[in-house]
Order: sequence, then C-alpha cells, then structure tokens
Amino acid sequence: MSTAARFDFAPLLPAGLPAPAARWTGLAKYSFVGGNNDPDQVPVDGLVDAVTAVLRREGRALATYNLAHGPQGYLPLREFLTKKLKRDAAIDCSADDILIVSGSLQALDLVNQTLLARGDTVLIEQETYQGSLNRLTRLGVNAVGIPLDDQGMRMDALAAALADHKSRGITPKYIYTIPTVQNPTGSILPETRRAEMLRLSQQYGVPILEDDCYADLIWNGQRPPAIYAMARNNSVIHIGSFSKSIAPALRVGFIVAPWEMMSRMLALKTDAGSGALEQMVLAEYCAPHFATHVPKLTRGLRAKLDTLMEALNEQFGTSAEFEVPAGGIFLWVKLPDNVDTLKLYQAALAAGVAINPGPEWSTNKAHAGSRLRLCFASPSHQQIREGVAALAEVCRREFGVPARSANVEKQARA
Amino acid sequence: MSTAARFDFAPLLPAGLPAPAARWTGLAKYSFVGGNNDPDQVPVDGLVDAVTAVLRREGRALATYNLAHGPQGYLPLREFLTKKLKRDAAIDCSADDILIVSGSLQALDLVNQTLLARGDTVLIEQETYQGSLNRLTRLGVNAVGIPLDDQGMRMDALAAALADHKSRGITPKYIYTIPTVQNPTGSILPETRRAEMLRLSQQYGVPILEDDCYADLIWNGQRPPAIYAMARNNSVIHIGSFSKSIAPALRVGFIVAPWEMMSRMLALKTDAGSGALEQMVLAEYCAPHFATHVPKLTRGLRAKLDTLMEALNEQFGTSAEFEVPAGGIFLWVKLPDNVDTLKLYQAALAAGVAINPGPEWSTNKAHAGSRLRLCFASPSHQQIREGVAALAEVCRREFGVPARSANVEKQARA
Repeated sequence: MSTAARFDFAPLLPAGLPAPAARWTGLAKYSFVGGNNDPDQVPVDGLVDAVTAVLRREGRALATYNLAHGPQGYLPLREFLTKKLKRDAAIDCSADDILIVSGSLQALDLVNQTLLARGDTVLIEQETYQGSLNRLTRLGVNAVGIPLDDQGMRMDALAAALADHKSRGITPKYIYTIPTVQNPTGSILPETRRAEMLRLSQQYGVPILEDDCYADLIWNGQRPPAIYAMARNNSVIHIGSFSKSIAPALRVGFIVAPWEMMSRMLALKTDAGSGALEQMVLAEYCAPHFATHVPKLTRGLRAKLDTLMEALNEQFGTSAEFEVPAGGIFLWVKLPDNVDTLKLYQAALAAGVAINPGPEWSTNKAHAGSRLRLCFASPSHQQIREGVAALAEVCRREFGVPARSANVEKQARA
Repeated sequence: MSTAARFDFAPLLPAGLPAPAARWTGLAKYSFVGGNNDPDQVPVDGLVDAVTAVLRREGRALATYNLAHGPQGYLPLREFLTKKLKRDAAIDCSADDILIVSGSLQALDLVNQTLLARGDTVLIEQETYQGSLNRLTRLGVNAVGIPLDDQGMRMDALAAALADHKSRGITPKYIYTIPTVQNPTGSILPETRRAEMLRLSQQYGVPILEDDCYADLIWNGQRPPAIYAMARNNSVIHIGSFSKSIAPALRVGFIVAPWEMMSRMLALKTDAGSGALEQMVLAEYCAPHFATHVPKLTRGLRAKLDTLMEALNEQFGTSAEFEVPAGGIFLWVKLPDNVDTLKLYQAALAAGVAINPGPEWSTNKAHAGSRLRLCFASPSHQQIREGVAALAEVCRREFGVPARSANVEKQARA
C-alpha cells in the first residue's frame, strides 16, 4: 500500500467533527481516572459458573439476534432488574418498561437523540459527569448548571432556573440529575428534595433524567427511593448500569421509561441489539449473587477510600479539602485557589499520575478550577499511597502547595 | 404512578424523529428475515471452553474499561483478525489498523458520522443491505443506486455515475459495496472489477467502503482478495463481522482503516468500548477453531439453501426465479411482475411467514417491486419447506400465482 500517493480523506470530512483521537499509549502508572473498578473484586468464579450454565442451556439462541427476546433485551435480565429495582430503589415496573442498552452511555445517547435538538437547553448539576456534559456540548445544547451543596442539587436554585427560563419562553428539555452518589461530589439527594424536584418538574412540564449508575455503591446500603419510584405522572426516565456493581468492561446498562419514550428510543436503537452474551452472564450471575456481591464490593471500595483520604491528609495536609462521599468510586477534592488543575493534570500525567481536572466535570469552570476528581477503585492501596505522594510532589513543584513542612509533619505522625 | 395526569413528552420531541416502534410481538412462525444463523451450528461447547479459559486467565481485567487494551479493542482479537484477514482476504494490516466495534452496524455509523452531512451523495449497489440504505435515508443523504448484474456492481454504470456527478460538481462521499456475497443478490465481484473500482476511486477521489460481512460464507471457500488488499493508496475502509461466522447475538464487528479515518472514528466512538467479554470469548475461540468451524457452518447453510431452492421449485415452479448465490444466508427471488412484495409481506406475515420485500432492499423500488429476500440459515429444513408452502398459498390467494396446477404437478413429482 506504499507506492501510490496516499488517498486524502480531508476534503471529504464534514464541518464540526471532533478533533481526531491520539494514539493510545496505555494507562498511567498511577491512574485515578475513569470509572474502573477493583480487579480483585471481579467475581471471576461466579461469572465462569454463570456463563457455563447459561451457554449450555441457551447457547443455541446466540444464532438469533436478541436471542429472540426482542429489542428490549434478554428477558431474564430484565426480570432480575424488576426485582432488584423494586428491592433497592422502590421502583415498580415490569420487564416491558426496561430497555437493556450497551452501557449507560448508550442510554444517554438514546435519551438525547429522542429529546434534543441543537440550541435546546438542559438543566444539569453544576458539577456532573464529564460524559454527559461532553455529549450536550457536542450536540450544541445549552447545559445550564444548577449549584450543589452537600446534599446534592439545590432546589431553590433549580426553582429559580426554571422560573427564569419560563420568563424567557424557554422550556428546558430535561433536568439531568445523578441523585444517588452524585458524580463527582458523592452526595445523596434527600427524599424531600426528590419530592420537590418532582413538583417542579410537573409545574414546569420538564421531565427528569435520573442517572443512578453509582447507586448500588453506598457504604451503609441505605438509599432513598428513586425519583422514578416517587413520580406519579411518568415524568422520569431512569437509567442504570452494571458497570459499577459488576464490571465496566461488560457494556450493559438499562433504561426504565414510559412507553411513550421507550417506543421513540427503540426506533433510534438501530444496533440490532446489545451484546447478548454479556446480558446472559449478568442475568445468570446476578439473580442469585448480586445481593451478596455488592456489599462485599462496597466494603473493599470503602477501605480504598480510607486509604486515599489518609494519603491526602498525609501528603497534602490542609491543602486538600473534601467531603466524605456516601459511596461510589471517586473523591472530589478542593486544592488551594492558586492551583489550576488543568495545568496540574498535564504535569501530573508527565509524572505518571492521571487525575480528572475539575473544569472537565463542571459547567462552572472558575468554581472547579482548583478542584479535581480522584477515582480510587482501580489502583491498589499501595498505588493509591504512592500516587498521591507523587501528585503532591508535582503540585508542590508547580504551585508551591502543599508546603513541604506540612508533608514532613504528617509523615512523621503516620 | 396512576393518580396524576400522565406527563406528555410529545411537545418536547424534536422534528424529524422516526416513527415510534411498535411493541415486539415475537418472531414469525416461519421467519425468513434477519441475518439470523443456524442455532444447531453455534459452537456452544467450544464457546464454553473458550470463555472459561479466558475468564480464568484474564477475568480480573473486566474491572478496567477496554480491559486496559485501549479504545481499539481487545488485542488478541485484533491479532487474530490480522492473521485471518491475511489468510482469507490477502489484507496486510496490523492490530493498530483495526477497530473492534459493536457489530458492523456501529461500523457503518462511525463511517457515516465521519464522512457524511445532510445533502451528501453516496454511490451504492442498487440492491443492497436495508440497514445501510435506511441509515443513509435517515441522515438525509442521497443514495444513488448503481445497477448490478450476476457478477455484482457494473463498472460501466459506476463510471457513468461518477462522470455524471463530476459534471455536476458533486463528489460522492464514498462508494458502498458488498463485493463478496453481495446482499441480497449473493454475487461475488470479480477481481478485475475490483481493480476497475479502485481505478475509478482514485480517478474521482472517492473512497470505497467495503462491507465484507458475509465473505466468510462462500460455498467453495474461494474468494478474491479484498478490495482493501488491492488498494495501493489507502482509499478503502474495510468492515467485517463475526455475526455471520459465529453468532449474530454477539455484537462484534470490526473496521480496518487508515489512521486518518481511524483517528476520526475513534473520536466519535464515545461508548467507552465495545463489550469486552464477547471480544475475549471470540478471540479465545477463533484463534484455534475459526478455520475449521466456518467450512462446517457453510456446508450446513448450503444444505439449507438447497432445501429452500427445492421448495421454491416445488411450490412456485417457474413463478420463482433466482440465481444460485455464491454463499451466504439469503436468496434473492423474483416473482411474476404482478406480485407486489410489499403487499405480499403484509399478507404473509398475517399467515405466519416473514419475508423481506424487495423495495426495502433497493434504491429502485420499481425494479424490486416483485422481488423478495429469503433468509434460510435460521429456520429448520422442515420450517423452510412448510414456510415456502405457506408463502405460495398466500401468494396464490393474493396474486393468482403460482397457479395451483403447477403446484400439484410439482408436489406429485416430489
């Protein structure tokens, strides 16, 4: 393929494409990014048993798209979800209300394709999941951030934003919330705020997109009912995932939605179904094991969080501020105001430490400028300690904080 | 959720959405549609052994997105593909040239998102895969059909179309072809025509999108080199799939493309990776077994095709005309001119027989109006015979053909 002049695709590319990807160069030595989980907690033996059983029983069905279970996905997985969602989130739904998708990112895409056009407005938590924010940006949608406090989205701010938009003749297309282990702040929206959000949703005719991807990973196992469960008028689209509870490389998520939305999303889901083997193994494994697997997983995650917080206290002292999250796999950290985490990100990466700079996880770039997200599920306890020490070293070199004396003092105490 | 008035999503929906999906009601009793395969030929034991081995060895990696192999997919699967593509299609590529995707439909979406804008033009085989055609329609792209003969796309017609578009100042964005077991006609494009297509591609600056999804299923195992392999200037994007060779419910396909296109498609592949377990099991199974599995599969498919052709001869006599396809899972059938296969489709479905009406598989609705596609891999030999008999009965009732005498005569001979 080397003798002729290379074909030039550039003149054929339409306007508005994202920048081309760079070649992948591997994970950082100390990786605190991405929703990766703890490799030691993948239930390998259970998955082997499950996949063996389900393939021997139903493997021939792989010859048929969707295993002949229709475009909403493998029925036993949807049936498991109806029981799980009832038990854990007080959601009363049937298998017909559930659509299995290729990870919750496909759920976001389907909801967005169904509801959004360029120029539309969405209300979104000010600090939020980067993947959701990037999607809205790419679609040319105006993402209006609603400030958070330690209990999640502030309802006074939401009410004000809805009233303001109404006064300008704008109906936001949806309110996007991660109410249960908010990403990145780790809070849980109290039931009273959920009820208030529903009241506002009804008053202004704006549906709620409830992203509950992290809701399984609560330290004390206590969670309020899902907003979907509290709704009395079908105004909520609920999405979830097995990425955080079982394994992210299995690309399996789900949507619970009224048929009016479901039928539109199905018309847009032109992928001939999501991966069947992953659905089969999840259904077979989760039906008997999910309820015991998840508490074990969260205990391990909580221990890693403790290691991370200890390491931050040791290495950063009072320079690192954070609230203890209610669950999950990430910690949202505030560094001194003079630290620019976008610059810190570059310098840290060069030193083998990957972090999520705050501005990529917020609609308020100034507020988030000295903040960062640290994911703690994937690195080992030792990697967490070493990585935080390396990060502190880079931060000190680039921004003069944390002061070395604080570090030495903390180390001596440890 | 029943006491309040139901939330009305309708005012929020943007213009141009496809019609909502209907509730799924199951497969037809006699289903000759969809790219389903033969359930008896799913290598269940081999898949069980493969998934057990790979999970025990690498299952912990499921905790990391993409198994830490990067966004192009599981490296052993890409390495298997480099060997397979070299052996079967004369393609010389490295693992870095391959992107694993969630079925070849995602490949089509990524190519389309990278190259197409509303109002663009694509040259496409006049009879072609419905999924490709529907995508172009949905994107507002002008799909210009190039007529076929029994050796595939006619190069005189392609040359004329390219010259005509050039004279009007239009550069088509790509030439879409299914050169090896064309869908739905089952032909194989000879090497001379492949060379001519490449010459035209270079002359007019129009790249080629080579969809080789069915290329593994050739009765005699003989295939020309892929167009990608013959190109000397990187002007070809090659896509393939494991749907036809292993199992369609595993959603695993691939793209081979120059980095200039690959880097653009990677930037648009925002799904956090395709399903890892399906990639793992395919790599583990295919490396030792693909080369023996596929000939066994195709022998079985050829036997089903024979049953289908016999049944058509028996039930339709001279009313059903067809060419014997070179391989694959479908037969393209011409009925008498007075048969409207869109109407036949509705009447047959009511009688429990699902067919693909020709106009859905062609840019030339008139030419395809009395044609239909029959997929034969999924139904059993008995279902094929019964289904064709039922179809003939419906066709006779609705359109007066085939004549009953022909049918009786044929049955007596059988």
